[in-house]
Amino acid sequence: MIVSETVEIRGHLINSGILSKVLLDIQEYGGEFAIDQFDVGKEAEDESYARISISAADPDALARLLMTLQTRGVNLVEPGEAEARPAEQDGVFPDDFYSTTNLPTLLRIGGRWVPVDNPEMDCGLLIAGDRVRTVPVSDVRRGDRIVCGARGVKVVPLQVQRSRDESSFDFMISDVSSEKPQALMVRQIAEQMREAKAAGKKVLWVAGPAVVHTGAAPAMVELVNAGYVDVLFAGNALATHDIEAAMYGTSLGVDLAKGFGVAHGHEHHIRAINTVRKAGSIADAVKQGVLTDGIMHALVRAGNRFVLVGSVRDDGPLPDVYTDVVEGQRAMRAELADVGFAIMVATMLHSVATGNILPASVPLVCIDINQATVTKLADRGSAQARGIVTDVGLFLEQLALELVPDYRALARSREPKVGHHR
Amino acid sequence: MIVSETVEIRGHLINSGILSKVLLDIQEYGGEFAIDQFDVGKEAEDESYARISISAADPDALARLLMTLQTRGVNLVEPGEAEARPAEQDGVFPDDFYSTTNLPTLLRIGGRWVPVDNPEMDCGLLIAGDRVRTVPVSDVRRGDRIVCGARGVKVVPLQVQRSRDESSFDFMISDVSSEKPQALMVRQIAEQMREAKAAGKKVLWVAGPAVVHTGAAPAMVELVNAGYVDVLFAGNALATHDIEAAMYGTSLGVDLAKGFGVAHGHEHHIRAINTVRKAGSIADAVKQGVLTDGIMHALVRAGNRFVLVGSVRDDGPLPDVYTDVVEGQRAMRAELADVGFAIMVATMLHSVATGNILPASVPLVCIDINQATVTKLADRGSAQARGIVTDVGLFLEQLALELVPDYRALARSREPKVGHHR
Amino acid sequence: MIVSETVEIRGHLINSGILSKVLLDIQEYGGEFAIDQFDVGKEAEDESYARISISAADPDALARLLMTLQTRGVNLVEPGEAEARPAEQDGVFPDDFYSTTNLPTLLRIGGRWVPVDNPEMDCGLLIAGDRVRTVPVSDVRRGDRIVCGARGVKVVPLQVQRSRDESSFDFMISDVSSEKPQALMVRQIAEQMREAKAAGKKVLWVAGPAVVHTGAAPAMVELVNAGYVDVLFAGNALATHDIEAAMYGTSLGVDLAKGFGVAHGHEHHIRAINTVRKAGSIADAVKQGVLTDGIMHALVRAGNRFVLVGSVRDDGPLPDVYTDVVEGQRAMRAELADVGFAIMVATMLHSVATGNILPASVPLVCIDINQATVTKLADRGSAQARGIVTDVGLFLEQLALELVPDYRALARSREPKVGHHR
Amino acid sequence: MIVSETVEIRGHLINSGILSKVLLDIQEYGGEFAIDQFDVGKEAEDESYARISISAADPDALARLLMTLQTRGVNLVEPGEAEARPAEQDGVFPDDFYSTTNLPTLLRIGGRWVPVDNPEMDCGLLIAGDRVRTVPVSDVRRGDRIVCGARGVKVVPLQVQRSRDESSFDFMISDVSSEKPQALMVRQIAEQMREAKAAGKKVLWVAGPAVVHTGAAPAMVELVNAGYVDVLFAGNALATHDIEAAMYGTSLGVDLAKGFGVAHGHEHHIRAINTVRKAGSIADAVKQGVLTDGIMHALVRAGNRFVLVGSVRDDGPLPDVYTDVVEGQRAMRAELADVGFAIMVATMLHSVATGNILPASVPLVCIDINQATVTKLADRGSAQARGIVTDVGLFLEQLALELVPDYRALARSREPKVGHHR
Repeated sequence: MIVSETVEIRGHLINSGILSKVLLDIQEYGGEFAIDQFDVGKEAEDESYARISISAADPDALARLLMTLQTRGVNLVEPGEAEARPAEQDGVFPDDFYSTTNLPTLLRIGGRWVPVDNPEMDCGLLIAGDRVRTVPVSDVRRGDRIVCGARGVKVVPLQVQRSRDESSFDFMISDVSSEKPQALMVRQIAEQMREAKAAGKKVLWVAGPAVVHTGAAPAMVELVNAGYVDVLFAGNALATHDIEAAMYGTSLGVDLAKGFGVAHGHEHHIRAINTVRKAGSIADAVKQGVLTDGIMHALVRAGNRFVLVGSVRDDGPLPDVYTDVVEGQRAMRAELADVGFAIMVATMLHSVATGNILPASVPLVCIDINQATVTKLADRGSAQARGIVTDVGLFLEQLALELVPDYRALARSREPKVGHHR
Repeated sequence: MIVSETVEIRGHLINSGILSKVLLDIQEYGGEFAIDQFDVGKEAEDESYARISISAADPDALARLLMTLQTRGVNLVEPGEAEARPAEQDGVFPDDFYSTTNLPTLLRIGGRWVPVDNPEMDCGLLIAGDRVRTVPVSDVRRGDRIVCGARGVKVVPLQVQRSRDESSFDFMISDVSSEKPQALMVRQIAEQMREAKAAGKKVLWVAGPAVVHTGAAPAMVELVNAGYVDVLFAGNALATHDIEAAMYGTSLGVDLAKGFGVAHGHEHHIRAINTVRKAGSIADAVKQGVLTDGIMHALVRAGNRFVLVGSVRDDGPLPDVYTDVVEGQRAMRAELADVGFAIMVATMLHSVATGNILPASVPLVCIDINQATVTKLADRGSAQARGIVTDVGLFLEQLALELVPDYRALARSREPKVGHHR
Repeated sequence: MIVSETVEIRGHLINSGILSKVLLDIQEYGGEFAIDQFDVGKEAEDESYARISISAADPDALARLLMTLQTRGVNLVEPGEAEARPAEQDGVFPDDFYSTTNLPTLLRIGGRWVPVDNPEMDCGLLIAGDRVRTVPVSDVRRGDRIVCGARGVKVVPLQVQRSRDESSFDFMISDVSSEKPQALMVRQIAEQMREAKAAGKKVLWVAGPAVVHTGAAPAMVELVNAGYVDVLFAGNALATHDIEAAMYGTSLGVDLAKGFGVAHGHEHHIRAINTVRKAGSIADAVKQGVLTDGIMHALVRAGNRFVLVGSVRDDGPLPDVYTDVVEGQRAMRAELADVGFAIMVATMLHSVATGNILPASVPLVCIDINQATVTKLADRGSAQARGIVTDVGLFLEQLALELVPDYRALARSREPKVGHHR
Repeated sequence: MIVSETVEIRGHLINSGILSKVLLDIQEYGGEFAIDQFDVGKEAEDESYARISISAADPDALARLLMTLQTRGVNLVEPGEAEARPAEQDGVFPDDFYSTTNLPTLLRIGGRWVPVDNPEMDCGLLIAGDRVRTVPVSDVRRGDRIVCGARGVKVVPLQVQRSRDESSFDFMISDVSSEKPQALMVRQIAEQMREAKAAGKKVLWVAGPAVVHTGAAPAMVELVNAGYVDVLFAGNALATHDIEAAMYGTSLGVDLAKGFGVAHGHEHHIRAINTVRKAGSIADAVKQGVLTDGIMHALVRAGNRFVLVGSVRDDGPLPDVYTDVVEGQRAMRAELADVGFAIMVATMLHSVATGNILPASVPLVCIDINQATVTKLADRGSAQARGIVTDVGLFLEQLALELVPDYRALARSREPKVGHHR
């Protein structure tokens, strides 16, 4: 039993972006639309006008949709009269009460448009005589006449100055958030990796040393073994701390099995570097039995590719590291063919570097606990980037749970014996 | 000498929001436009088509604008042939080289569209035989044929899935940034405050205790004295730490004159609260000469309004604090009449509370060093909010410099004698 | 084969805190100590002197420990002469090279103390004639004479001005870090909860609405069902968003099954509140079959305790919420008896409130993605608090995996059908 | 009229660090001490004992100090009996009430130690019959007998497990804070720079591109001109954005005179790079009149030194940039002689790189809006680093106000004409 209404809107519909938001709203509320009439303004200063038919599955859904569209300045062509019903008890609205916005609002009563006295969001509208005012739910009293449904209500949208002239700031909004259902996001990424592999494409990882610091190296090793890490871009730090952890069980002073700092273990990393320099390369260190565990070891064993590009803060560096950054960029470019999915974990420097050279057609996800890293990538032009603000250690743990068969059993078997003395 | 071109674009122009971005681009690059033709898709799945005349002040500006619009999928109706010129030296492009995007790109050569081999942003396009590839500036060699201008270049935009179906994440972008010219922003806010006062409106402040911790209380006192703080909404913490600082020179353990912590001065705040409770109220404490300095003192002296609403984490609280939050909300609502500008400084709780009850028509700015606080306000529905991520202490210092005549001299005169032993 | 050495140190050993750090270092490196002599300075300005015997399991461990202690200004009573060996290849140090600090360093050569020319950390020491300088590993050349072991090396510690006089800033360090092995930390917390329950104690949770936003409500429901949530302290927001999610499948505009925003679903929360107000209370809503899922539902079903205390930013609020914060504090205090473990998740306001009233003897852990929340709790006096900067959604997922038998199967069975159209 | 008392403490005084904290407390509260007796534990497991005479300027200061020391487990050798006085009105304590901690507490009444029922911080102690309990100030009633002063009170400290064994987490605390009096800190840094210059030393700056994005380039230019920037370490980004801003008035899409984004100005930076590559070097671009403004221009004009070291994310780069990071490190080392003060602004990569090679004896301050950057530097071993979490733009503005005579007039004269159309 589809129900429908006809609405209209007038203004700078296109260059304000409002019309596209209206159409998105309709889709998100499960409605349908047809544009009955659209008169476009020819020049920048002309207004446009649109009349749109909207429909929804039932009257309730349609009422909800209409209330939402009102916040955009979309109003019924035939608004009708406002309907009000008395509240049945103190502190409670009628079920289908009109929930207010904080925008200027008018109510159609007795054929006249009456302005609402004090716009405030998330309130009801109370009609008292020929006046209308907002009332919070805690202040409504039994018998108060409360407006129900969207009929007879008109909302006047703010003129958002999208032309960014000198009297206005940007309109500011952020969708990168740590307040998203994280477990679901992990599942979606796992699915995309499976799809890329099924299509014969490579999965490219860009990773920072926090992968090791957060204790996620074992998870990443299993992801390498399960075939989900075809190429790795990283710096001296990730490889060094991974190798340091494999050789000494520490990573920049964090004892990974115990979860607290060995404050003065810092020199371990320079000894690890010296050892690999002596061996000749990471692959040589694996061959000579000097390196027997960790992410780099797993990559060498699997015969997978990695490109390590250095930076000015490096100690050493490891012999495999490109110290010339322009040569390093060339080496990274050479690995991009056939990459079908890219994932960036806990690194700003190498993520931006990879974003710089990656075609926009490669899907790309960026994981970091720091929101700034995630937004910076999008700001720098990698518009296809999707960002997730989350904990890197737990993220990789969950990703391995999704992608690696029997991961939990594997993880338990290799887990350090907590409570055991060194 | 205005120059112009005709461009076209096809696709889901409205519900993708692309058309509004295209028109904004034109205005931001100083161009003008007229929509020559616009065929709107009637249903959600129909494509639209637009043909637009664009003009700019000179050929260079027009070329720059065309390159930009190409990233939106807007291309010349008559693209013409690509033009190439040889690089004159190693590692340097011709001045008017075409700067690439990371989108799929086609080049018109000899009447055919040739795809670019490896899209990468911020490169040049090098024509070699019948192939075209991107080349970074460091790899270009003398004599390489480099594409110049936007003629003969076509860019294929990504299909951004704005309908948010289940296979896509949100496109994520943030405009709230600490990377904005801050001194300029301070000046703009000062100007808006002056305008509100000139229009006979009140300036509403919502402030958290960091105003005191960051040493900005003296700046705020001068702003009160200069008439720029008509109403203050805050909690028990701001008032307590302000009064604690006035009575003991500390604020939650930070010795404000010396810049380091008096780690165990915590009990000072509960003594300050007890003293005011004994006096009866903050105004009584001023009257009795118990409170002789600080923000609350200045407000009482100026006869200005303040509403303090408590929270579950409060010690004490001060006798002026509403312990019932619903009553506190009512008291805040009662002060909103005639507010013409609202500024929120370093408080999430009371900022969101004020955003909840403020009409959208009141301009509103939110200052915090934490980006999360700033974005949360916009997310919660206060779309008119503009956020500035900055240091609260230095912000108020600069604001006082803008608004208070002779502030610098005033500040010097009351400054603690650093280097003096206690 | 225990080996040992005797070391000495002189200075403001106690009020600089250095001596305690030295003893901690020894324990962390697996060494043992005995204080042979300790002359304490009687007044604040007097220096102290200590002579300490240290021992370790083998010469290598002892050498490593000695190098570490040198950074504290602890030196061998009988330093001996420096030993040097030639590097065997370009870019590689001898295995047991002395790894430098950035502190002023002296080398004992031919019975004299020779200062190192240019202190730099993580380098080797190169002896050339009668001069000694630091050399980074990339610059060492075959045949260079490199110092090995800690013998004959003396390090001069900086005078850290811990007396915090007016010419110095605080020494600043942070141990709250997101760079810790997170999966291990989850396991430790699970273990502590089991211990508290085994001892007949209650587990107290303090939780914010991000528990719902991050999709962790199902995990928390299972933790309630498994008996690990005896008491919950929260605000109006957690309960509202939990109930909103149970009734509408959204939480403040986030569609939890799909992972993206229903931007205008905001009014859902005020409808959910109105519905519970009509029912009378949360327990009544459960009894009447109006509320059939979520955390609050699980608590009511289990007969567990919850205290909801309101704040000034609340909409509604729910009928169970204490609107008077002082009464709310009293209600919270009344639940503290027999609490043996407290966990605070994603809430600053109620965490600090609980920290304020909790005895220091109750172990307490604080989980938040925002480092500021975690450190604030410790700063406010809850010194027993341990903080973990991590993602709340993934944390609770992992905690449920640890504590709830068959959690993974449970989670899979109730998971939304992604890919299904509304 | 000096007053004094004798206190004692027993426990693992040294390796717990407690004794050093006790002595610091005494100094911070303006007290004096003499260690009358100190029996040190010889082995790790032995307890120590100290008896200390403390004195203060008046009985009130001494009482305050004693209350503080009790939180460390320091108690009076002769505790005496607790004193109580009746509250004179509801909700108000006597002036000298004993303010509680959250630690287990005992009260000496009638010669017996009575434990306090429910430890809670920031409360008073109420004696009722032979029981003692905490009472918050809002719950005290006229006539309640409230303990005054520290006499007869004993506090039992928690056994903080500083030995970091496997059953405990780290004790976590942070002193790097944005909640410090910022204006004062700026003044202290200005003073240190003046001192370094007066001593004939160089001031080294390490700076990131946010210096330009935040609109602080003009302030930094004046600091160069005033002689406070002897050497600059930076990357390609700072120099590029500075030169881009000088040539085009934008910096990575931020129009600096207007304060909002020119979203598609991104290609400007690659054109700026190309122009300098064509000129040959930054100095050549100045000489040829191609570059006429900005930080790099000021450095060239002043004949000052700069070292630019590249990274893998660089576009271009500028011809002056070291693309080999090991060579870049050597070039940086070569500039360290005579550096007497180092300041790092808004850059993590080059700050850590500089921290790696800087002797610990050079005072070092690190400014960033991101707390993580500031703490990372200290964690990496630069223990002399002092961090300030603040806004870079406003910080440099304030620093120029302190150091550059007539800076405000200078700034006004060069300020863009806001409100002027392009």
